[in-house]
Amino acid sequence: VKLRKVAVIGLGLIGGSLARALKGSGGVGEVAGADTDAGTLDYALREGVVDTCTADIAVAAAGSELVVIATHVGLIPKIASDIVPHLSQSAVLTDVGSVKGEIVRRITPMLPPGVRFVGGHPIAGTERSGVISSDAALFSGRTIVLTPTADTPKEALGSVTSMWELTGAKVIEMDPARHDRIFAFVSHMPHAVAYSLVAAVINQRDPAGIYDFAGGGLNDFTRIAATSPEMWKDIFLMNRDDVLVSLAEFSSALRRLERLIELRDEEGLLRELERAAAAKRKGK
Amino acid sequence: VKLRKVAVIGLGLIGGSLARALKGSGGVGEVAGADTDAGTLDYALREGVVDTCTADIAVAAAGSELVVIATHVGLIPKIASDIVPHLSQSAVLTDVGSVKGEIVRRITPMLPPGVRFVGGHPIAGTERSGVISSDAALFSGRTIVLTPTADTPKEALGSVTSMWELTGAKVIEMDPARHDRIFAFVSHMPHAVAYSLVAAVINQRDPAGIYDFAGGGLNDFTRIAATSPEMWKDIFLMNRDDVLVSLAEFSSALRRLERLIELRDEEGLLRELERAAAAKRKGK
Repeated sequence: VKLRKVAVIGLGLIGGSLARALKGSGGVGEVAGADTDAGTLDYALREGVVDTCTADIAVAAAGSELVVIATHVGLIPKIASDIVPHLSQSAVLTDVGSVKGEIVRRITPMLPPGVRFVGGHPIAGTERSGVISSDAALFSGRTIVLTPTADTPKEALGSVTSMWELTGAKVIEMDPARHDRIFAFVSHMPHAVAYSLVAAVINQRDPAGIYDFAGGGLNDFTRIAATSPEMWKDIFLMNRDDVLVSLAEFSSALRRLERLIELRDEEGLLRELERAAAAKRKGK
Repeated sequence: VKLRKVAVIGLGLIGGSLARALKGSGGVGEVAGADTDAGTLDYALREGVVDTCTADIAVAAAGSELVVIATHVGLIPKIASDIVPHLSQSAVLTDVGSVKGEIVRRITPMLPPGVRFVGGHPIAGTERSGVISSDAALFSGRTIVLTPTADTPKEALGSVTSMWELTGAKVIEMDPARHDRIFAFVSHMPHAVAYSLVAAVINQRDPAGIYDFAGGGLNDFTRIAATSPEMWKDIFLMNRDDVLVSLAEFSSALRRLERLIELRDEEGLLRELERAAAAKRKGK
């Protein structure tokens, strides 16, 4: 046993899968789960997702060396402030949110002496959600980004790393600012673009005619735009500055393409498209 | 036998698949193929993609009731002007280009009396290309959009329709302008957006760091942006006006979203995202 007790706050797809993986690993003495939804708690206990289960985060936190906040990203700072008074003296707190800078900035000042926070972002997920979709193998072979800062002690980082390694994941480290800039480009901005694409279609006089042929390429975008509005609202606002920078970069690339089409600049257009196609080939 | 001789000009994925499907149907007396590439002609004859095969479009066209131009969209008007002198007196000419307005406008005035042009766009394809990927079942159950105009005689439309029905496809009719407006939204504008997204990434200082995490959502776009630059250059320019309109609509939706993020307007942002997510659910 590497860790005596780990608490997972929020037993959705990510939290439930983490709890299952930790239980299955045999490396944790007690996997304690907390959730506000009674159906989720019943299911988690009945199906052995966790060892113990509670609606009271104080009970889950008590005696835990490691507490993982696995709720929707917008709730993470609030849950952290609720849980801080109940943490053991040298507990390590971590999370699974897909924005890191603002979470680290808001949680760090809340911590009593001896308690540490290490931001985390597992690059894993499916289009399903909830504890009923949780899967002990979800993180196997996937990457977990941890975002320590200059103030993070080696032991705190080591204990979060050990936990994730028990799930079969590969842990990498990155500072919170770089994480947020990369994920703005990789994920947040593309989602904003997909939403806008669907919004542009809705605003047409003949959206039904357009949807009839969505298989022609539009579906790749509408599928992305159908994911949780509540979650994306939080991500866009929590990573606001990087999202706005990446959107500005995107808009300027789009304006360049638009201008080449407007000018009927055949050679310039071809060069521009070839540049993007070549980058993809290199990127893979 | 419904048609005595059909010529397919260009034996790529679409032309090769059409030739195979027509041969397999038993509904065509002679399926004649033409291509400029010697390797393609060898393969097509050896593998029985066509009944007869030639590098000379005059030979393919001679005696054909129906001639299908199945080259890249940018070449279609030029091929039409090369082939027109060789067409039989009451031949029907059609194509498979994904832009229709400009093709119909440019080809119609070239035609001698008695010869008709009916624009066509099969909504089918794969990420592969070339005669070696051709497949007799490619059009089975797929939609073919034909774009007759007020001047198109019923018989000409009927003969193109019969040909496509031999492949197992479903034929629908639409005027060229509506086709181009719909496909600007469904396909052309999303491609321009995907190219711009990749271009925005390339312009970053840390594109490698970004590509490492492209699985987070970016890959859906880079995959789209990797398709033939030459073909997309032609599509953007041939459907220039509709592409520019759809890009303007998209940009204005994006600016609205950007503004809500900038203003940290939580409620407005949620409403906007919910609207797009709901449209997707209705659209499917």
